[in-house]
Amino acid sequence: AAGLRVTGAPQPPNILLLLMDDMGWGDLGVYGEPSRETPNLDRMAVEGMLFPNFYTANPLCSPSRAALLTGRLPIRSGFYTTNGHARNAYTPQEIVGGIPDSELLLPELLKEAGYTSKIVGKWHLGHRPQFHPLKHGFDEWFGSPNCHFGPYDNKARPNIPVYRDREMVGRFYEEFPINLKTGEANLTQIYLQEALDFIKRQQAAHRPFFLYWAIDATHAPVYASRPFLGTSQRGRYGDAVREIDDSVGRILHLLRDLSIAENTFVFFTSDNGAALISAPRQGRGAQGSPGTGTARLAPAEKELQGQNKTMKIHVPSRSWRDRSRKECLSNVTSKGPGGEPGGQTCPEGGSNGPFLCGKQTTFEGGMREPAIAWWPGHIPAGQVSHQLGNIMDLFTTSLSLAGLAPPRDRAIDGLDLLPTVLQGRLTDRPACHARVLPPSSAASLPSTEEEGPIFYYRGNTLMAVTLGQYKAHLWTWTNSWEEFRQGVDFCPGQNVSGVTTHSQEERTKLPLVFHLGRDPGERYPLSIASTEYLDALRWITPVVRQHQEALVPGQPQLNVCNRAVMTRLAVVSTAKHLEAAGAAGPAEPLPRARK
Amino acid sequence: AAGLRVTGAPQPPNILLLLMDDMGWGDLGVYGEPSRETPNLDRMAVEGMLFPNFYTANPLCSPSRAALLTGRLPIRSGFYTTNGHARNAYTPQEIVGGIPDSELLLPELLKEAGYTSKIVGKWHLGHRPQFHPLKHGFDEWFGSPNCHFGPYDNKARPNIPVYRDREMVGRFYEEFPINLKTGEANLTQIYLQEALDFIKRQQAAHRPFFLYWAIDATHAPVYASRPFLGTSQRGRYGDAVREIDDSVGRILHLLRDLSIAENTFVFFTSDNGAALISAPRQGRGAQGSPGTGTARLAPAEKELQGQNKTMKIHVPSRSWRDRSRKECLSNVTSKGPGGEPGGQTCPEGGSNGPFLCGKQTTFEGGMREPAIAWWPGHIPAGQVSHQLGNIMDLFTTSLSLAGLAPPRDRAIDGLDLLPTVLQGRLTDRPACHARVLPPSSAASLPSTEEEGPIFYYRGNTLMAVTLGQYKAHLWTWTNSWEEFRQGVDFCPGQNVSGVTTHSQEERTKLPLVFHLGRDPGERYPLSIASTEYLDALRWITPVVRQHQEALVPGQPQLNVCNRAVMTRLAVVSTAKHLEAAGAAGPAEPLPRARK
Ligand SMILES: [Ca+2]
Ligand SMILES: [Ca+2]
Repeated sequence: AAGLRVTGAPQPPNILLLLMDDMGWGDLGVYGEPSRETPNLDRMAVEGMLFPNFYTANPLCSPSRAALLTGRLPIRSGFYTTNGHARNAYTPQEIVGGIPDSELLLPELLKEAGYTSKIVGKWHLGHRPQFHPLKHGFDEWFGSPNCHFGPYDNKARPNIPVYRDREMVGRFYEEFPINLKTGEANLTQIYLQEALDFIKRQQAAHRPFFLYWAIDATHAPVYASRPFLGTSQRGRYGDAVREIDDSVGRILHLLRDLSIAENTFVFFTSDNGAALISAPRQGRGAQGSPGTGTARLAPAEKELQGQNKTMKIHVPSRSWRDRSRKECLSNVTSKGPGGEPGGQTCPEGGSNGPFLCGKQTTFEGGMREPAIAWWPGHIPAGQVSHQLGNIMDLFTTSLSLAGLAPPRDRAIDGLDLLPTVLQGRLTDRPACHARVLPPSSAASLPSTEEEGPIFYYRGNTLMAVTLGQYKAHLWTWTNSWEEFRQGVDFCPGQNVSGVTTHSQEERTKLPLVFHLGRDPGERYPLSIASTEYLDALRWITPVVRQHQEALVPGQPQLNVCNRAVMTRLAVVSTAKHLEAAGAAGPAEPLPRARK
Repeated sequence: AAGLRVTGAPQPPNILLLLMDDMGWGDLGVYGEPSRETPNLDRMAVEGMLFPNFYTANPLCSPSRAALLTGRLPIRSGFYTTNGHARNAYTPQEIVGGIPDSELLLPELLKEAGYTSKIVGKWHLGHRPQFHPLKHGFDEWFGSPNCHFGPYDNKARPNIPVYRDREMVGRFYEEFPINLKTGEANLTQIYLQEALDFIKRQQAAHRPFFLYWAIDATHAPVYASRPFLGTSQRGRYGDAVREIDDSVGRILHLLRDLSIAENTFVFFTSDNGAALISAPRQGRGAQGSPGTGTARLAPAEKELQGQNKTMKIHVPSRSWRDRSRKECLSNVTSKGPGGEPGGQTCPEGGSNGPFLCGKQTTFEGGMREPAIAWWPGHIPAGQVSHQLGNIMDLFTTSLSLAGLAPPRDRAIDGLDLLPTVLQGRLTDRPACHARVLPPSSAASLPSTEEEGPIFYYRGNTLMAVTLGQYKAHLWTWTNSWEEFRQGVDFCPGQNVSGVTTHSQEERTKLPLVFHLGRDPGERYPLSIASTEYLDALRWITPVVRQHQEALVPGQPQLNVCNRAVMTRLAVVSTAKHLEAAGAAGPAEPLPRARK
């Protein structure tokens, strides 16, 4: 059962990555959420290391997850589009692309050190058979290829499938129900059980494991199981957070119970910032009333619409979010506010704390993430590290834990965080090593070691760069005026003139620069006439230049949509419309539904 | 030396109130400040009880302090004006009024239980002799009657005096220097020493003490002593916070060293939310450059200007804040960014975390405060209480600690928090006891016990009320269009349409209602057509009505300004312009300067 392990060699530590979906920096008590409903995560931080300056590689699910598993910026792995400036893209059902075979994923590499790997939850790196997680190094999978949007009609559009390993075992809203009205779904409990079972099995088999727990209860439509519904001060979103917090507590408890806590490296983070909700029109004084405004699309659906202009996608006249809002209000009508399960939940998004904007944007609210490292007996308790960390570091760090070096035949953006978590060291990121500072300004630069860089991309556009405490925006953009006028707002309640722009403002020649220590909310751009501004730019500019000159973008994977790709799957569960499947269907045998 | 204490009776606990000035909810690591530079305060919270839902009674210094020391809303004690709707007022040098003799202050009452009381720092309840803290129950004072604005010319306007007990021992910017350019001042160290000395003396004398440590380093112009300058990631404001955090650590350490920690109740909070800085015009792309815009006044100075329209007050052409910004930039020019003492500090305000707006406003950012209770051996460690607390509760709680009942001849708004801190109970506020709920809605109301109410006043206007998690705005206003157009902005970077209004919007008939659990940032008003809205209003309306019907406003103390009041004091130190003193000078002998 020891697999490839050499008998007698010390077993490398287990690796457990807890990846949240659309959870914001400000959603944990330890990061200041006022309701403070995350006692288990807060305790995890007290027992481990908290990162206030940890980032994702992209403000959207798919590219962020590709970055985690490859250790590379999505621009390198191909998890971006070229069909729209600064256009975020992910993998909806219609998308043809996915994770290229040429990419080396963490579980593939960990096999060399004898690890057994499982993904629980959302994959999001392509849903066609060739992109299946078990073809990219995972030994087990329980979860879905896509977000739990729905329900769909299963004719023009199938519901999202749920897999156990290679087989589809059902679909969201069918075998795996999500009640949009009440917010009830049992999925987090199922994902928890999958995690606990896997850990127990691997421990019994004395095999090192990699568990990638990529749950999605905090991604809209947010859900929680019945025991947690209505238990939060924060509405339905808070219910979901409470259930996740409880689940993390149970997982860590199991590790201790099995006496493998000291041999299990655990890291908690999120794939992108909280999705802030468009400011509703209703309820402002006397003007307007709910449900009577024009239909507004949720950002994700909206994006889908723009995915391929020539394709007609079935979009309901009201998106799930509008529906959810409406139901939220009808719940209120039938049940009254507060306490009861299924009560009032709108708005349903999380919190990015003091940071600007959220998901989809390259402001801090979109990309700065909660992050906790936990490894009793190895990581000293109660530490806070100001290391500029990135989700891609989990790739390199995991390899390091397994005694493996990252691939040398390609650019790797992830940093080994072990010196940080074990010795509290602050480390430059790889891209910084070769940079040359102008001698004149070097003396006046802050003597920080945690300097970065952090690159903030949207699609294939480098929007911003952070070095040390200085962040330079090369482009500013929230979303288009057209979307904004329809009520889609990535920065509700926030408006920094010249910063939260709805036109795409190029600032590559004269970037907007913020000092993130004094001004974490990105409200006060440095004066372009100040020496500080000039020094910061002199520092950042060569780093940007070097990055862009050396960059070899991967083949973009997220450009092409084709309805046949999803319809082909739909017929499996509906046993209808087989002939409607288009030419672009998967070349390999279809997965079979098992019920 | 035991004073009024009966020999043999158990000595009541010492009471130590640590009151910050303009420090925001989000300024402590334990409340999520990203730089996490408050290890001592964070430890205090871990050893004690943290309040995420603690409020002040007014978003400005003077009325807030009057509320703390009287246990009464400023509208009752007279700490408000009638000369402007929703106009915040405080006690600048020109003000004639102050704390009325008819008010019973905490130190006066504590005398009955044998306490010796000292105030260290800012008094702000009137600077004329009859308002002197030693005339209102304090036995000792080291500090100033007013904010440390300045320097002034000492002709038309004197610098602010500093007192030891009854004697003036110098003035800010003279004997007690504050270097506006570097931000250096030794004041926090002096205030720390005063606290430590007092504690040691009282401990040696076996006397119970009340120490009111009302320091002001985080009030603009922010300052820190040399060892702390340049040590923060957050600029000069962060330097001030670090020095305060260090000082609190030393005070708590002394209590432990003297073995009186278990006999000393300590409470840390702030008088109002962080003062957010107006968004600077400079640095936005290519438009504008620093120092060339029109002069903008800092809110405090601006307010002062409006204090009495018929009076001509000396206002420098650029306020200290503009000057500070300019100097901040010149510092950058001469010293470069970052590390060095006196480096770059603008913006200099604190953080209100995820909350809306700041000081001067009745949004959560203006009135929700950091709050920690610490009493080893009595308050269980590591607790978080969601009690809706208020700064006025410190009055009643302190009396309770001393075994005293609050006065019965007047309305007292403070609540005894001892059941909360000792047993974790959530308690209604007094004003709630008599309220009558409409039976129809009672069943559907949240079954919370922490229901409030919290009243949010500006001047004599009841702007908002919070009951449980529902906050109703009866009026919305940030500041006037006129001020806003001049660059004064109490909500920089924030803009919630219909909420952060620059006109005074009356909403008493149809209040804006927010659910502070789901929406702590006050971004999503409930739909006025929802049952939740109607139920919340049905709950709140009678509480407002009852409060307003029963309210007997005190004589307004902050209406009248008279230059003579300040000039009369100025002559003491300058020994000039005696004849310029007007008729409204103090009736009692002037304090003598001692040098
Ligand atoms: Ca996501
Ligand atoms: Ca204040």
